Formats: sequence, C-alpha cells, structure tokens
Amino acid sequence: MDRQNFSMQDMKSVFEKLKSFSARPDEKGITRLAYSKEDQSAHSYMVEIMKEAGFSVRQDAVGNVFCRLPGKCSDLPAVGTGSHLDTVPNGGAYDGALGVLAGFYALMQFKPQQLTHDLELIIFRAEESSRFGFSCIGSKVLLGEVDKEKWVLNCDDEGDNFFDVIDKAGYQSNKIEECELPDNYFSAFVELHIEQGKRLELEKKTVGIVNGIAAPTRYNIEVNGHADHSGATPMYQRHDALVASAAIIDDLNRAACKEAHWGTVGTIGKLNVYPNSMNVIPGEVKFLVDIRGIETDSINRVAESLHRSIIKSQQDNNVEIKIREISSEQPVKLNQDICQVIEQICLDKKINHLKMISGAGHDSMNMAKKFPTAMIFTPSKDGISHHPDEFTDFNDIIIAADLLKETLYSLAK
Amino acid sequence: MDRQNFSMQDMKSVFEKLKSFSARPDEKGITRLAYSKEDQSAHSYMVEIMKEAGFSVRQDAVGNVFCRLPGKCSDLPAVGTGSHLDTVPNGGAYDGALGVLAGFYALMQFKPQQLTHDLELIIFRAEESSRFGFSCIGSKVLLGEVDKEKWVLNCDDEGDNFFDVIDKAGYQSNKIEECELPDNYFSAFVELHIEQGKRLELEKKTVGIVNGIAAPTRYNIEVNGHADHSGATPMYQRHDALVASAAIIDDLNRAACKEAHWGTVGTIGKLNVYPNSMNVIPGEVKFLVDIRGIETDSINRVAESLHRSIIKSQQDNNVEIKIREISSEQPVKLNQDICQVIEQICLDKKINHLKMISGAGHDSMNMAKKFPTAMIFTPSKDGISHHPDEFTDFNDIIIAADLLKETLYSLAK
Repeated sequence: MDRQNFSMQDMKSVFEKLKSFSARPDEKGITRLAYSKEDQSAHSYMVEIMKEAGFSVRQDAVGNVFCRLPGKCSDLPAVGTGSHLDTVPNGGAYDGALGVLAGFYALMQFKPQQLTHDLELIIFRAEESSRFGFSCIGSKVLLGEVDKEKWVLNCDDEGDNFFDVIDKAGYQSNKIEECELPDNYFSAFVELHIEQGKRLELEKKTVGIVNGIAAPTRYNIEVNGHADHSGATPMYQRHDALVASAAIIDDLNRAACKEAHWGTVGTIGKLNVYPNSMNVIPGEVKFLVDIRGIETDSINRVAESLHRSIIKSQQDNNVEIKIREISSEQPVKLNQDICQVIEQICLDKKINHLKMISGAGHDSMNMAKKFPTAMIFTPSKDGISHHPDEFTDFNDIIIAADLLKETLYSLAK
Repeated sequence: MDRQNFSMQDMKSVFEKLKSFSARPDEKGITRLAYSKEDQSAHSYMVEIMKEAGFSVRQDAVGNVFCRLPGKCSDLPAVGTGSHLDTVPNGGAYDGALGVLAGFYALMQFKPQQLTHDLELIIFRAEESSRFGFSCIGSKVLLGEVDKEKWVLNCDDEGDNFFDVIDKAGYQSNKIEECELPDNYFSAFVELHIEQGKRLELEKKTVGIVNGIAAPTRYNIEVNGHADHSGATPMYQRHDALVASAAIIDDLNRAACKEAHWGTVGTIGKLNVYPNSMNVIPGEVKFLVDIRGIETDSINRVAESLHRSIIKSQQDNNVEIKIREISSEQPVKLNQDICQVIEQICLDKKINHLKMISGAGHDSMNMAKKFPTAMIFTPSKDGISHHPDEFTDFNDIIIAADLLKETLYSLAK
C-alpha cells in the first residue's frame, strides 16, 4: 500500500474485500458476529494491510486493534478515530466498516512527523450486541468499565460468555484490566459512521455532525409457564408463556409509541420459545428488551410501564416472569469544540450538513466519557441498517472521508 | 422373551429401556423426534425383541412396524392395536410408548392359533407434529392419505421435508402408495394411550373409553416486516413483525377462550423470530397455529377470528402476513360396538371408567376412517403431557394393559 497515493478508489477496494468476510455467503447481507471466524479474519486482514503500509500496529488483551502514525511530538496525547468491523446477523456492509476504512484512508494521507500529534485508528471489538446481548464491549474495556459479574451472565447462543469466547479466540481475559487507556491518551476522538436512520436523507443533507448519543436500557426477561399438550389442555388450565409474552410485547410497543415525540424507542428484537413445538403449549419464553432515548425521564416511563406490564401478565396468565437489567446507560453529550471544528470545515467546503443526535449507540459513547469526542454521520438510504439493503452512496462517502481527514488534520496539525 | 410368561414387570423393563433412546440425555424428559437417530434405534430395539419373541415382523416403505400373531383363520381380517414411539422435544416417556408396550404385552399373552383372528401390533411413525409441523404421518400413509404437494412444503428445522428424511433414513418414498392397507385388513383396532388431560384424575377414574377425537386445524403464518436498527428507527417508521405477531397471539387466545365451553382450544406452540438479534427490529416472524375441538362450528369461529386478526394486524403494523392452511381435519366418532365391548369388560372387572372424548389427535383418528376403532385412556398425573413430568401410575398401567388384552381377546377369539 502506497501512502499518500492511497485513493478513494483504493479505499473502495478494501471495502469490497471486507464484504467477503461473512459467515453466510449464500444468504443476503454480511454476518460477522464478534470474534467469529469471519470477524477474526477481517481483523487479521486489516492488521496485515496496516503493517504493509508501515504503521505500527498493536492489539490489546481483548483484540482491539491500534494503528498509529507518529507526529512530531509523540509525548502529546494522540488524535484518534475508529469504529468496528463486527456485524449483526445478515447485517449491512457499511455499519462500522465504513468508519474503520475512512480512518484508514485519512491516516494514509499523512506522512510520519508531518503533524504535531500522533494519529491513531482504533478497531473496537464487539460493538454489536448480537452475540452477547450487550454492546460496545471493546470500548468499554478501554474505559476500564468491565463489569465481570454482569458480563459472565450474558452468554451467546452456544452458552459461552465474553471471557470464554475471547480466551478461545486466543486473547487474554485475565489481562483485561491492562487494556484501560490513560486519561491523556487522546486529546480528541472522531468516529465516522452511517446514520442508520432517515433524517439526513429526508432533510437532503450530506453529512451529520453528531453532538449527542441516545442511551440504551436493556433487560433480559424469562417467562416461565408450563409446557402442556396443546390438544388436551383446556384454555382455562393453561400457563402459556407465549401468550404472556405477547401481552408484554404489545404493552411495550404502546408505551414507546406514547413517548415517540421524545424520540424514545422500545424494541424486542430477540425472542426464543421453548420447547418450540407445534403441539406443545410454550412452557418458557426468553426475550430481550431494548429501550433508548435521549430524555432520561421518557426512558424511565417506558421502563416503569414494562415493569407494570410484567406484573399484570403474571397475574393474567398464571406464569412467573423474571426481569434482569442488562445495562442502563445515560444519554451522552459529545464535545462542542470538535463539533465546531467539523462544522467550520463543512462551511469552508460548502458541505450540506446537519447537527443531530444519534439514536443508535456507538463506541464514541464510551470514548466521550474520558476524551473530547464527536461523530460524523453519512446518510443511510431509506434509513435502512442492520439489514442486507443497508447502503450509502459512494459520493457521500468520499465527502465524509475527506471531512474526517480534514478534521483530524485540524485537530493534530 | 418367553411368550405367556411375559409379565407386567417385563413390560416395565422394556419401558425403562425405551427411555434411554433420547437425543438430549443431559436434559430432562425424552427427545426422540420422528426418524432421528434415537427414534430409529428405539424402533430397531422393538423389532429385535418382537423377532426374538417369535412374531413375524415387517416394516413398510415409511418404516411403520407390523408385528403379527397368527390366529386359526389368517384369511379373516386381523384385530389390531398400536401406537407410536416418537416424542416432542423434551417430552414424556409415556405418550405413545405406553400403547406400543401394552400392545406388545397383550400379544405376548396368546399362543399362535389360540384365537380365531390374527392379532397385529403396529408402531406408527411420526405421530408427533414436532418435526414436520403435521402429525400422524404413519397412519395417514396406511390410509392412503398422502398429500405430496402439501407435505413437501412442510420442512423440519434443517429444511428437509418428510420425503427427504425417510429416504435418508433408508426407507423408500417412491413406494409410499404401496403402504395403503386394504379395506378388510382389520375387523377392529384398539389403541391404548395416556389421556394427556386431567379429566380422569379429577373424576377419579382408572380408565377412559374414548368414543370421539377432536380434530386439529393448522396454519403456517409468515409475518414480513422490515429489519431496521432498533436505536435509529422511530416508532412511527417501523414494520415490526414481532409486534404484529403479538397482536395475533393475543387475539387467538381470546377467541379460543370465548369457545372454551365447547372444548375448543387454540395454540401457537412454535414461533421463530428473524434475524433474532437484540438491536434489530424483527423483520420476519414465522409461527404455527393449532386449533382443535370436537364442534366444527366452534373451530370455524376461531379460524375466522384468526383471519380477521391477520387483516387487522397487517393494517395496524405495516407488515405483510401470509397464511397457509397445513391441515383441516374433521372431528372423528369412534366405534360404539368396540366401546361397548370395552365397557362390558370394565363392568365385569369392576374397573372405574369414563366414556370420554380425546382432545389430542391420535393415529386412531385415521384408522377409524377405514376400520372399526376405539381407544383406551390411562390417567395423566396433573394432566401433564409433552413434558418431562408426564407420569402415569404403574398400577393404572397394569389395569389398562390387562383391559387391552381382554378386549383384543374378546374381538379376536
């Protein structure tokens, strides 16, 4: 890879190559679950081209990748960028990967010692919650926010928790504390990501400057009824865990719709029925609830409604329901100074832009707790994300990647 | 195996041995899905001990097992009994197996040429709908009721249909028509089975004489919404297939509860969410609906309500819903003459008995279309079935197996 001659077309080639790391090549979309064989291969591939381009590259005890370009004053805090490569099952090619590639593109445009600060690109691990039921694990680890007691309870579909999985992948869960970044590691951090919503498209903007991120509150719910024969058990003798769950699904949807004007959303994305057989009344249902918003009071109202709904459904349906909070995060405000730097470049370059909030969570949410952080959004066609049809126009990508490069230059020069 | 010295205790030993054929020995209950490795082993074991005991044994092109004891006049129609060995996932040890064993016990009590008619024990294949979504396949085949066009559409979790699976198991789907039994094959057929409900227990009866069987009407339902990011998609822009399904689950439950006094029931036992990930709005949900009763009008009212509910949920939730009927069977009346023979033996032997209807479907439902057929029920503790806690007291089993023997004697002597 030839630094400084690395073009947008080269970035596109790397993007196309990354698409090939998918567990279900016969199905639509990209399936690259955190720490799966395909996720490992994608990371190895990126590490390889980073080294080939002459960057110094390290990986920490959970597999986060750090790609560094030295500036004149390496003792100063670095200026960072980064995103993730893991995906949801049958997800899109842009979510996460685009930020990694735009960061790589940006770093390729500078020579060592050209800028004052070092530049560093991070590939965060396990940003998606698809595997373990909670998200942004790599960046949480960098912030020292490891909650072992909670994390061991959240297993993947094979029954392995995060620590089991990273050890099997060759990393070292016993050294996880050593991953924490010191307070002066970054003077600024900027993540480029797709919007995953429709606002930019509807308002005909090319770039979003993100000054806040909505926070997810998540619950694990287990409904315990009784698995009886579907033909021989009268309606009044049933303990149907699915009927009990349906009432909660319906209630959550209504509660979130009531809060829609606050931007709050409530979703049950994962639900499993046991024993899941035509002629057996469901004896057990397990599901995950995801509530997000930027207004804490509104999030709390939906969460309270969920708790009331569970109590009612228990009584109505003769089942027992357990609720366990997986995570409860505060909405995050991003750094206004960095947002202004980005906005000034947009004004200078006449880029149509919009200051906005992110509805989805990102690693930047964690980075912002310790380092001045902001985000750049590119539009998502029809707002589609976490889906094979996820798409961002390459012309928009060019503008955003160049904006990221200019922003890093401005922050590190 | 020593015929005529074969005791109830010997039958119990075979019962205990059958329990060992289970796919999930580390989990509770028996998992012996139709044509699975464990199901094949259980059938091989039974064929082995039948041959050892000197019976002539044959298997047809779908693997139904026929174990025959010759009478004096083998040109007369035989007197039959039988049940099945396959189970639901994590099911009980009694459902099906008990009828096979009681039949085996009964045949062991007679000598060749002792009775006028031949006796024949059938082990029907794939009685449970757990694998293919429709039930009593072995007995349907014996009645010549093979609906190839419908059956190829119902695949198991690996995507194989019934014909694929039996061919892989070494049977011959191309000879399935040859399995049909001629009209004069049986003069009478009696199946012993556990009740799978609570009536016998509540009314303190030892035996149920079954004179009718409720019929299942079944549907395959596919809800197509759109898989979007759970955080970035406002409530009013969603096409949530799970929220749409919850409304239908709730409606079906209400509709069936309204018909409870007719004995009608409605169940959604199997439901799968796609992509089934915490942070993705469910884009697709597939589920199976099972409606049963003995009153056709009442079944129809629930089915009509289901159709209305689907139309409403489509409109309310911006999704598309496809409904496909898997089966629609008529309630079956069993043979009153055989019921009287059984009742007379109960009166002679002072067995506490109850004439009743079966809420669950059985292979006898199919046998009754061609042959005079009745059933004997043993009580199910707490009405539990299709569950690891399924249990019938051995004292009740002794009485019922002896009643079956006496009934077969009476019909074949």
